[in-house]
Amino acid sequence: MAPLYTIHQHQCHLKWDNSITPVATVTSGSVVNFDCLDASNGQITPSSTVESVTAMDFSQVDQVNGPIFVETAEPGDVLEVEFLELETADWGWTANIPGFGVLADVFEAPALKIWKIEKDENGQNFTWFKEGKIRSPTAPFCGEIGVAPGAIGAFSTIPPYRTGGNIDTKHVIKGTKIYLPIEAKGALFSVGDGHAAQGDGEVGGSALETPMKVSVRLTVHKDMPYVKEPSFLTPGPLASNFNTGKYYSTLGIDPDIKTAMKKAVTFIVDYLESVHGLTRIDAYMLCSVCVDLKMCEVVDMPNFAIGAFLPLSIFV
Amino acid sequence: MAPLYTIHQHQCHLKWDNSITPVATVTSGSVVNFDCLDASNGQITPSSTVESVTAMDFSQVDQVNGPIFVETAEPGDVLEVEFLELETADWGWTANIPGFGVLADVFEAPALKIWKIEKDENGQNFTWFKEGKIRSPTAPFCGEIGVAPGAIGAFSTIPPYRTGGNIDTKHVIKGTKIYLPIEAKGALFSVGDGHAAQGDGEVGGSALETPMKVSVRLTVHKDMPYVKEPSFLTPGPLASNFNTGKYYSTLGIDPDIKTAMKKAVTFIVDYLESVHGLTRIDAYMLCSVCVDLKMCEVVDMPNFAIGAFLPLSIFV
Repeated sequence: MAPLYTIHQHQCHLKWDNSITPVATVTSGSVVNFDCLDASNGQITPSSTVESVTAMDFSQVDQVNGPIFVETAEPGDVLEVEFLELETADWGWTANIPGFGVLADVFEAPALKIWKIEKDENGQNFTWFKEGKIRSPTAPFCGEIGVAPGAIGAFSTIPPYRTGGNIDTKHVIKGTKIYLPIEAKGALFSVGDGHAAQGDGEVGGSALETPMKVSVRLTVHKDMPYVKEPSFLTPGPLASNFNTGKYYSTLGIDPDIKTAMKKAVTFIVDYLESVHGLTRIDAYMLCSVCVDLKMCEVVDMPNFAIGAFLPLSIFV
Repeated sequence: MAPLYTIHQHQCHLKWDNSITPVATVTSGSVVNFDCLDASNGQITPSSTVESVTAMDFSQVDQVNGPIFVETAEPGDVLEVEFLELETADWGWTANIPGFGVLADVFEAPALKIWKIEKDENGQNFTWFKEGKIRSPTAPFCGEIGVAPGAIGAFSTIPPYRTGGNIDTKHVIKGTKIYLPIEAKGALFSVGDGHAAQGDGEVGGSALETPMKVSVRLTVHKDMPYVKEPSFLTPGPLASNFNTGKYYSTLGIDPDIKTAMKKAVTFIVDYLESVHGLTRIDAYMLCSVCVDLKMCEVVDMPNFAIGAFLPLSIFV
């Protein structure tokens, strides 16, 4: 049986930095369990109100648990991270944080939604966005998955990098193997930022954020030189919890990709307000958790077509 | 039964222009059948070689069949186009056309692949990319779906517009209802550019291009003011022909979305070359037909994460 290690909530750091002392040293093939606080680093709780968003200390957010030194891992190698288990807490939050999100210039006021995560009759986790009306399945993953950069210095945990970090990629669910290019001796792996559900893009700036218990197997590969940035192998079809029924989709057409993307999201918000009676801020937060951004057309210049896809299966 | 009209191959036009004389006038709710040549307007045939790409007259490509004048359609209304049938020819083509595609600066030489479209034991259409090794299902749709712009003038059929046109959106398959904002009296609907299969993005610049027989129902709506650009309702889950197994996915991480997108596609080409032994140009053409671009993360500035997703179900 593979050696097993446990990393606790307090064993975390707030920058990607190859000079941080590892919290554990493991052999390739080891299983490591992590107990991670949510991305607010415990500042938001099930009883929080919108004032908690306003009061949040941003120097403390997006902490990651680790780093793990993996023996035999050298720069130029690839670290495989296999997600064996991902277990959310029984609650989560989604916020509109001023300055974050694709429509930050439109939705300027802070907002907060606390979600309760429940189990249905089949043992599947789900959560009500509106009790009896809008119900989302969960599809847990970690937004932050990374190894230390080779460059000397302390780098923010907010953006993703070629070594991973805050990739916020919803498809890295249980059973996925993600491959990260190693730049520092020992790889120095860390993980965090539990998401119970999220749309492709995380358009509102936060997902369904939740504390997460994570179990991964870490394996060093010496023969994958083609992995230059994070790549992954999914365990099966994509978005199987959400991709069960019809979708309503809006295209944003524009010569500027960001403008096309903003239009597509705005049109979904328009639809959710006009057809489903949601307030615009509620619609926007729902988009962040359930709506997927696809690059439908990127070659017919001068205009791009970016699509926002809303799964209608969430409407009961 | 709804009135039925048939539009032939030669009843086409090469610009979006609200002054073009309609080829038919129909009532709202009518069914119209179209017989469309492929996007090369018949310049590429099953016996073509790469010389046909070099010799192609680009002033004749991306023709659309129509326009159809729909009675009662006024500017500010919305045209619903329901796709009742989409039938490909028994062949198609994919090209690398110099100057087109997200990696146009890398793949400079023209290339052409002719595909044979066959039926499997269950009556489902499919096509071999490499006989006995790589097999793609089909998922037919039309790249060009549009109404005339309100502005006076002749506009290229190459880009998409807020009134539709070359949206190249693979999810508008049989059973989909697409909604287009009407800007000209009578809507002036046209359709064309048959695709037997395509990835989100059409990254190589052409799809699996094919002649297409299309049947649509055209319905005018006066009560959908929230439709500002093309929007659509799918008949069920997305990409059900392709989303049947594991995916290999590469992220491109960059502050520039286009660079991130180019990296993601390049990394899939690297993978197809390294792991599956494809030539790079073959890999690139396969990407255009089978690989989906998703905007995985667009809010963690300064870097975007764009994902290219390859369905491994195509490998036999």
